Amino acid sequence: MNVVIVQNDPAFGDVSRNIEDVSLMLSKRKDPKPDLVVLSELFASGYQFTSVAEAHALSEKAVGPDAGPTVAFMKALSRETGGLVVGGFPCQKNGRVTNAAAVFRNGELVTVYDKVHLFDAENRWFSPGEGPLCLVDTPFGPMGVMICFDWLFPEVARSLALSGAMFIAHPANWVLPFGPSGMILRSVENRIFTMTANRVGTEERGGLAPLTYIGQSQVLSPSGEILARAPRETAAILEVSFDPAVAKTKTVASESDAFRQRRPDLYHL
Amino acid sequence: MNVVIVQNDPAFGDVSRNIEDVSLMLSKRKDPKPDLVVLSELFASGYQFTSVAEAHALSEKAVGPDAGPTVAFMKALSRETGGLVVGGFPCQKNGRVTNAAAVFRNGELVTVYDKVHLFDAENRWFSPGEGPLCLVDTPFGPMGVMICFDWLFPEVARSLALSGAMFIAHPANWVLPFGPSGMILRSVENRIFTMTANRVGTEERGGLAPLTYIGQSQVLSPSGEILARAPRETAAILEVSFDPAVAKTKTVASESDAFRQRRPDLYHL
Repeated sequence: MNVVIVQNDPAFGDVSRNIEDVSLMLSKRKDPKPDLVVLSELFASGYQFTSVAEAHALSEKAVGPDAGPTVAFMKALSRETGGLVVGGFPCQKNGRVTNAAAVFRNGELVTVYDKVHLFDAENRWFSPGEGPLCLVDTPFGPMGVMICFDWLFPEVARSLALSGAMFIAHPANWVLPFGPSGMILRSVENRIFTMTANRVGTEERGGLAPLTYIGQSQVLSPSGEILARAPRETAAILEVSFDPAVAKTKTVASESDAFRQRRPDLYHL
Repeated sequence: MNVVIVQNDPAFGDVSRNIEDVSLMLSKRKDPKPDLVVLSELFASGYQFTSVAEAHALSEKAVGPDAGPTVAFMKALSRETGGLVVGGFPCQKNGRVTNAAAVFRNGELVTVYDKVHLFDAENRWFSPGEGPLCLVDTPFGPMGVMICFDWLFPEVARSLALSGAMFIAHPANWVLPFGPSGMILRSVENRIFTMTANRVGTEERGGLAPLTYIGQSQVLSPSGEILARAPRETAAILEVSFDPAVAKTKTVASESDAFRQRRPDLYHL
């Protein structure tokens, strides 16, 4: 399975420029038809909203004749590659806006996942997702999707892995420092591949405290190996090939198994 | 709350020497009456057993007139400090042996916890604990106890924290490299203090593959700060003071909460 992770540097609100940037980055990649492309959270809108109105103005419908430009780009990209595309956008739904990720496959929308665990000021602009968690059947096995702060709740990756996810696509806009190393534990404890597409750059809008995104997009193996990691401060593309079937085995050591040794009867969750 | 973490370098099977070593290390500490002393997993017996008979021979009863020397040492230590002592030993119970941790307070045995998630060859010598997970009331708030490999199962620290644990004492004999950084995530995701007492040294017994213990005993804050960390290869004592009440707040950012934002209705665990 060939995956491409795009770490971009969007300018807030300049959707067409940001899409063009990502498109240009992708046009330079070695593999023209990756099986999966993962784009960052809100990769075309930017992240630091300052009002509900702004979130509404940049939100897009995922389907129908009014579907927005970010969604259209992901759809076209997936048709072009013939594979899967996962990327974030502000989703307009029943008059509310969610921090969402769309999954496209070969030109078709597979699903839209609304971020369940909103981070900090996001709670002001976005409605939290009401679930279910996002598990998608793919030709390469079940894929989980989670968005940025979802990762800090161990239940999310755990639930996805226990439900069969062999790899997780993880659009993010990380600002806290724990993500890159913390995700190693998410891969190791669940014995799955994880792919985080983060962004870089700084936003400082509307008198809010500046947000500096920490890059370090990465692809991790079920044994915690860093298969690829992008730099902290510059836009970058990662191209990695792995065999997702490795994630079927939950062996930690020859006589230890991360799943079979669980004792749900003893947990209080 | 003043805590002392002992990272020792035991010689397999030489219980009296190992206890004397720990005793000597403790006698040099600055604070003569720490509120909590955490000792490593199997700190006096050593780790690399090669037969069930060996595990039986080194196992100790935790109570009664036949209580063993390791248990007697921890009991006496807790009487001397007037505080809590947590440390690992092979526990004899109904003809079986468990990989256990005893909790003493001021000369009294509070509880014995049997490790639930056994690592690798431990499955050959020890019976797994049947629970419950170990939560102990202390004058400083509820304390969780887990042993080494228990840490890799996110459910353990999560269950303890959700049940009120403000700090976790974690005797370990880590050989895998993920522990020291991975535990940062355990502290951060649960917003609790964690205290891992690991060991150093190498064991290579009975034709088994050598085990090298990675030290790096540590005390971590709920925000992931490394309050103290021991070296990789040498015995060491850590002395740290912290306010466990910090762990009552589950705030990750001003508008994000690690507990309140949980959505158990959406998890499949």
